[in-house]
Amino acid sequence: MIRQLIEKIQKTKAPVCVGLDPMLSYVPEHIQAAAFEQYGETLEGAAEAIWQFNREIVDHTFDLIPSVKPQIAMYEQFGIEGLKVYKRTVDYCKEKGLIVIGDAKRGDIGSTSAAYAVGHIGSVQVGSKTYSGFDTDFLTVNPYLGTDGVKPFVDVCNSHDRGLFVLVKTSNPSSGEFQDRLIDGRPLYEWVAEKVVEWGDASMDGDYSNVGAVVGATYPEMSRILRNLMPRTYFLVPGYGAQGGTAEDLKHCFNKDGLGAIVNSSRGIIAAYKQEKYKQFGPEHFAEASRQAVIDMVADINRVL
Amino acid sequence: MIRQLIEKIQKTKAPVCVGLDPMLSYVPEHIQAAAFEQYGETLEGAAEAIWQFNREIVDHTFDLIPSVKPQIAMYEQFGIEGLKVYKRTVDYCKEKGLIVIGDAKRGDIGSTSAAYAVGHIGSVQVGSKTYSGFDTDFLTVNPYLGTDGVKPFVDVCNSHDRGLFVLVKTSNPSSGEFQDRLIDGRPLYEWVAEKVVEWGDASMDGDYSNVGAVVGATYPEMSRILRNLMPRTYFLVPGYGAQGGTAEDLKHCFNKDGLGAIVNSSRGIIAAYKQEKYKQFGPEHFAEASRQAVIDMVADINRVL
Repeated sequence: MIRQLIEKIQKTKAPVCVGLDPMLSYVPEHIQAAAFEQYGETLEGAAEAIWQFNREIVDHTFDLIPSVKPQIAMYEQFGIEGLKVYKRTVDYCKEKGLIVIGDAKRGDIGSTSAAYAVGHIGSVQVGSKTYSGFDTDFLTVNPYLGTDGVKPFVDVCNSHDRGLFVLVKTSNPSSGEFQDRLIDGRPLYEWVAEKVVEWGDASMDGDYSNVGAVVGATYPEMSRILRNLMPRTYFLVPGYGAQGGTAEDLKHCFNKDGLGAIVNSSRGIIAAYKQEKYKQFGPEHFAEASRQAVIDMVADINRVL
Repeated sequence: MIRQLIEKIQKTKAPVCVGLDPMLSYVPEHIQAAAFEQYGETLEGAAEAIWQFNREIVDHTFDLIPSVKPQIAMYEQFGIEGLKVYKRTVDYCKEKGLIVIGDAKRGDIGSTSAAYAVGHIGSVQVGSKTYSGFDTDFLTVNPYLGTDGVKPFVDVCNSHDRGLFVLVKTSNPSSGEFQDRLIDGRPLYEWVAEKVVEWGDASMDGDYSNVGAVVGATYPEMSRILRNLMPRTYFLVPGYGAQGGTAEDLKHCFNKDGLGAIVNSSRGIIAAYKQEKYKQFGPEHFAEASRQAVIDMVADINRVL
């Protein structure tokens, strides 16, 4: 699966993914009004508003980008109705030829991780039939429980040609609280990185492994070290744009071949029309603002590669 | 919320929760057949089988126990249809007067954790209305991202009188891989424990905090230390029974007042009819086997208290 992602990155010349993390407050008034008109101020109404919002953004950006990363929490907050739109968004993006990274940060004891794995990136057995619950191409995974909590995801990657991004060093302000603590002189995230390499060793797919890592754009010095520690691990890099990471900060996430990382931006793209810079589009043309923001982001990143 | 849980534990004299973690393979043949007859071998069929299985177990045990802990992964593996049954199970258990611990192990950057928190233990705003997506009483939370990833859950606990159990030391075989690593001479799980105490300081609800901890039954020496480190933190203790933890192993999880811990058993209760010990019930009477297994578990634990 990482090979497919790389091919799409090379084709679009855009090592980016658009984070489809819609807060209802990002959805322009006219879309919310139309959805509430149809379904009332209900969970169905919220879900419909988010779906219309997503669809327009995807329609206006899919030809420019290799992939999207829907954050499942933003759908889960609306319960079942929200999750239906998560699935609908995943399916729609795949129809449009996009690679879909499900940002779910799941992780549990072995038997439980196995259930998450079949539900999100594999298939579940029901009598003599098999079904895919959510069917994303990649999934983000939390490593706190260690190897037996991650291994079932890796197994499903191998059997279904899918990929993972395991949290190594996250982009949030307090990520260092545990992740940066020194163990035998080295921060925890380096120990996790070594395990990610080990977990991914048997999942090579071309030059890179299907087992990737999440490495935040907001800690550039650390990404330099992690790049060296994990030469064949693809990085999913959150934190660019709204969270404060700049293109300069991203340099070290890439290998010398210009590959090795895919940079996510969520709010900076999907709510671009709310920024001073893209104000001229107006809420009616929010998706055109997103398209311009993608073009600008790609140019910004390619400038440092 | 922890006060309500304690009252129910005292009333039932049962510091236990039943883990509603149904694998389809646990569901007796006759229930699967009836569900597949109605819906075919589909995700709806699997979900219906699990719902009927859960309902019977709850009907046969709710008077003996204070709480249940549905593991959301076991539902999520069947996609939307599975998650509908997760919700239905949560709602049904609450109608029966049970306290529901949603075992979801969520955790992300701040804004994303906030979305999970409103979806699972709080309420989400839609225009002028508010709705609860899943509406469990407690939620399990993963601490790898640090304070700003946990704080939004704590905030919702405080505003909605709900509770958390934050992963500290998990019950699985490789939990020590990162959790036991020494940082300034003390294992990571102790540092997490100290943070859990800090996070819970402003969430006291009677003698205990609404911010609890997950501490596996399978590491008794560690639970003794954690009990001392976290005197006012309630422990959710997985790993008893099928995972290998014994009643003796649990002793240290409790305070001298006999409170401080609630012990989960999943497979050992819900699939009791498959054990040699309860074989006489047979698959037709699986829920009576579960009832007997609850009675035996409660006696076993009370023996060491």
